[in-house]
Amino acid sequence: MINRLCVIGVGLIGGSLALALKKAGYVNKVVGAGRNIEHLEKAKSLGIIDQCETDLGKAVSHADMVFIAVPLGAMAGVFNKIEPFLHKHTIVTDAGSAKHCVVEDATRELGVKVNQFIPGHPIAGTEKSGAIAAFDSLYQARRVIITPLEENSRDDINKVRAMWKAAGADVDEMGARHHDLVLAGTSHLPHILAFSLVDCLNQVDDVDEIFRFAAGGFRDFTRIASSDPVMWRDICLSNGEAVLAMMNRFENQLTTLKAAIENNDADALLEIFSRAKKARDGFCM
Amino acid sequence: MINRLCVIGVGLIGGSLALALKKAGYVNKVVGAGRNIEHLEKAKSLGIIDQCETDLGKAVSHADMVFIAVPLGAMAGVFNKIEPFLHKHTIVTDAGSAKHCVVEDATRELGVKVNQFIPGHPIAGTEKSGAIAAFDSLYQARRVIITPLEENSRDDINKVRAMWKAAGADVDEMGARHHDLVLAGTSHLPHILAFSLVDCLNQVDDVDEIFRFAAGGFRDFTRIASSDPVMWRDICLSNGEAVLAMMNRFENQLTTLKAAIENNDADALLEIFSRAKKARDGFCM
Repeated sequence: MINRLCVIGVGLIGGSLALALKKAGYVNKVVGAGRNIEHLEKAKSLGIIDQCETDLGKAVSHADMVFIAVPLGAMAGVFNKIEPFLHKHTIVTDAGSAKHCVVEDATRELGVKVNQFIPGHPIAGTEKSGAIAAFDSLYQARRVIITPLEENSRDDINKVRAMWKAAGADVDEMGARHHDLVLAGTSHLPHILAFSLVDCLNQVDDVDEIFRFAAGGFRDFTRIASSDPVMWRDICLSNGEAVLAMMNRFENQLTTLKAAIENNDADALLEIFSRAKKARDGFCM
Repeated sequence: MINRLCVIGVGLIGGSLALALKKAGYVNKVVGAGRNIEHLEKAKSLGIIDQCETDLGKAVSHADMVFIAVPLGAMAGVFNKIEPFLHKHTIVTDAGSAKHCVVEDATRELGVKVNQFIPGHPIAGTEKSGAIAAFDSLYQARRVIITPLEENSRDDINKVRAMWKAAGADVDEMGARHHDLVLAGTSHLPHILAFSLVDCLNQVDDVDEIFRFAAGGFRDFTRIASSDPVMWRDICLSNGEAVLAMMNRFENQLTTLKAAIENNDADALLEIFSRAKKARDGFCM
């Protein structure tokens, strides 16, 4: 049970956690914090938060739990602003899609108080953004990865785990570096491919016709290209090393496939497609 | 109204057309043809076809309309087998995902009877295959592209158009080469990217863990990688030129994006992602 939850960045991710915890009766009061008072008032009118606060210091000063759900590029600034106002008992966690960079920011900006920061990443979301897109079941049966620091106490880690369980999620723990590599493959690379495909077709002469004849598969495939550009810019910059490694792997794969097409190599094509289908059918039952 | 429809290849595509036309009351009798009598009997038991025929000559000899829904690599063989048995009034059409190659096959195998062949392509499907996956609403509000030959009569073309309209589809006409380029972008390239992504991740050491942390976006993105490998092998071989051209465009796009990440070029990344999001939001309202 959380008495006072402070959500910094009341968008899809932050707003949905507030709604889920309210529905579960797991929180008494939610303070929404951010730079834009109109966005916060809107979130309040939607019943997502109970109080609006544009001063981050005030927002966190009496919080039991602080949830930071801002783009990765804004994390360091948030840590810097809240550090002087963090009470000893306050736990801070986040929703950053890459973890090593957030750990670096937190270590630098929070100083000795970094022990109060439990890095986390809910593997959930939609291509929509903003408080208006938030809903209370976003985290139901989804996974949350926590990448604990050596400085964290098991008690604090367990409080973050319990919060996510109350929101309906399953919680795993792993190292930050490992998290970043896994997510580069399953999330960051697919988003880059979807953005790139749409941008690539958008530069073809008959672009209107191309999109007119796009079928359902194309819509599914490119849905994630409607995601927030700022968020994805920051992910590419913050997890560049792992993302580039995955992109290189993928390019090698395309090169192999191109060679098979150029050489009319029916066996090689069938082998690649069969292997992929088998893998995909296997993990998405 | 079609008195006797012959469907060669009673899978998702052929079976769904039979079901749609039956539901619309647009066909009297459906003869299902193929090599595997067990598959045909199964389709008959599902009410998709009324009669099974493994002899293609017999299957088409009294048909008013023949619908060929086999992988592209099997088209030439089908044309070759049915040519001697085609009555003058019989119209033949197909569902091949690439059209120039099918026109070449038909021209070579059908000889003077090529005027009876109206090439077509319903832009519809799911990642599933086989008669068991067929359903009567597959073509509702979907597009069908007809790529008429100079030899076709307008009357015959209109009969194929009317059949697809009865199945619920909207019909467009364009040249075969143009069709192949448009589809290489909207369908063939996305499938290649999805197959390649899954195969790429499947070769990472922690493959189980990678797939375990895949979220909804990944499932949507890779759904088409569950498609029929034989069908996609044939598409790559039959539409190789256009597919390779699109793959080269895509690779250039990836190269630009990689450079932006390597150079920490936040502005370039934001520009690419914003442009893609705008295009995607625009065409998928």
